[in-house]
Amino acid sequence: MTQKKQRGQLIVLSGPSGVGKSTVIAELLGQREDLYFSVSFTTREPRTGEQDGVNYNFVGRAEFERMIAAGELLEYAQYVGNYYGTSLKVIQEKLDAGTDVLLDIEVQGAAKVRARCPEAILIFIAPPSFEELSRRLHGRNTDGEEVIQGRLKKAREEIGEVKNYDYLVINDRVSGAVAEIEAILTAAECRVENRDHIVKGVLSL
Amino acid sequence: MTQKKQRGQLIVLSGPSGVGKSTVIAELLGQREDLYFSVSFTTREPRTGEQDGVNYNFVGRAEFERMIAAGELLEYAQYVGNYYGTSLKVIQEKLDAGTDVLLDIEVQGAAKVRARCPEAILIFIAPPSFEELSRRLHGRNTDGEEVIQGRLKKAREEIGEVKNYDYLVINDRVSGAVAEIEAILTAAECRVENRDHIVKGVLSL
Repeated sequence: MTQKKQRGQLIVLSGPSGVGKSTVIAELLGQREDLYFSVSFTTREPRTGEQDGVNYNFVGRAEFERMIAAGELLEYAQYVGNYYGTSLKVIQEKLDAGTDVLLDIEVQGAAKVRARCPEAILIFIAPPSFEELSRRLHGRNTDGEEVIQGRLKKAREEIGEVKNYDYLVINDRVSGAVAEIEAILTAAECRVENRDHIVKGVLSL
Repeated sequence: MTQKKQRGQLIVLSGPSGVGKSTVIAELLGQREDLYFSVSFTTREPRTGEQDGVNYNFVGRAEFERMIAAGELLEYAQYVGNYYGTSLKVIQEKLDAGTDVLLDIEVQGAAKVRARCPEAILIFIAPPSFEELSRRLHGRNTDGEEVIQGRLKKAREEIGEVKNYDYLVINDRVSGAVAEIEAILTAAECRVENRDHIVKGVLSL
C-alpha cells in the first residue's frame, strides 16, 4: 500500500535509561524515512557524543521554565533531577501534514500525552532482564555507581507503569526490537479508522 | 522474541468472494507455521480444486443443522443460499494451548465472533477497486454472470460493514497484503496484555 493515511500517528517510546532506546530509534529512523523524530528539550547535561538539536535540545532551567509558563510544551516532566519536555507546535504541524511523529519520553510524560491524545500509540521498551540492564549501564562508563543504582531503582518503578502502554517490546537484539516496532506502526496504519479514505476510494471505483 | 505468549490469538479474516482470500491465507500459513487455520464447515458445493477438510469441511444441510442444534458452532451464517460455520471445540483447544487460530468467515459470522470473543482480531480484506474485483470474478470462470453480479452486489454490502473490523487490508499484491497481516499479528503479540508473563520474567531477573 502506497496510499497515505489521512493524519499522522503520534508514537511514544519510553524505556529505562540504558535500555538502548537511542540505538533502536536511530535504526528505526533509518528504515522509515517518513517518520519524524521529535527532539525533546532537556535541562540535563549532554553526554559524550550527544549533539544539541539531534539527541536533545539542551536548554537552561530558566528557558525551560519559560516554555512551561508560555504553554509551549505538549508534556514535560522531571526525571533524576532534570526537566524533559516536548514542543507542541512542530508535532501538530507534522501530524496535520500526515507525517508520523516519534517521541522519546519517560513514563510521566507518556501518561500526559495519553491524556491529551488518546489515539497516540504508546510503546514501552524493556531490557531482557535487570541483570542485563545493569551490565549495559556499567558498560556505558558515563555514570558513577550511585547514579547507576538510582537508574536501576527508577527502571523498576518505570516497568511497573507498563500497564499504561499499548505495547511492550523487549530490546534483546536491536534488529528484533526494531522489527517489532515497525510491525506496530504498520498495523496502526492498517486500522480501519486510519483507512476511511481508502474505503471511499474502493467503493467509488 | 522467542518467548511464547500465554494464550493464542483468534484472528478473523473476511472479504468478498473473489478478493483472493484463499491465496493470501495459503501464503500466510506458509510463512507462519505456528498459525492454525480453522477449516470452516459449509453446505455449498466444492469448486474445482477445492478439497474436503482443506478448503472447507463440506457437509449436507441436515448435518449442518444438527451441528447448530447441538451447539457445536462458534458461529454460523447463510451466504448466497448456503450455510457456513465454525466448530467451537478445536478452536478452544488450540487457543488454550497458546496457538493462534485463523478463521476465514464472512461478515455476519465475524460479527458473532466479535460478540462472543471481544479480544478477537478482525481483519477485512478488500480489493483495490470494484472494477478489479469484477475482473477477478470473471477470470475465475467458475460462476455465471448472474452469480457474479450477485457477488458484486454482496461485496458492496460487505465493505459497508468494514467499520465493525479492526483492520483493513487491500489485496492489491498478495505479498503486500500478507506482509500487512503479518505485521498485524506481530503487533498483537506485542500488546502489553499479551506480555504479562514477560514483564514478570524481566522483573524477576
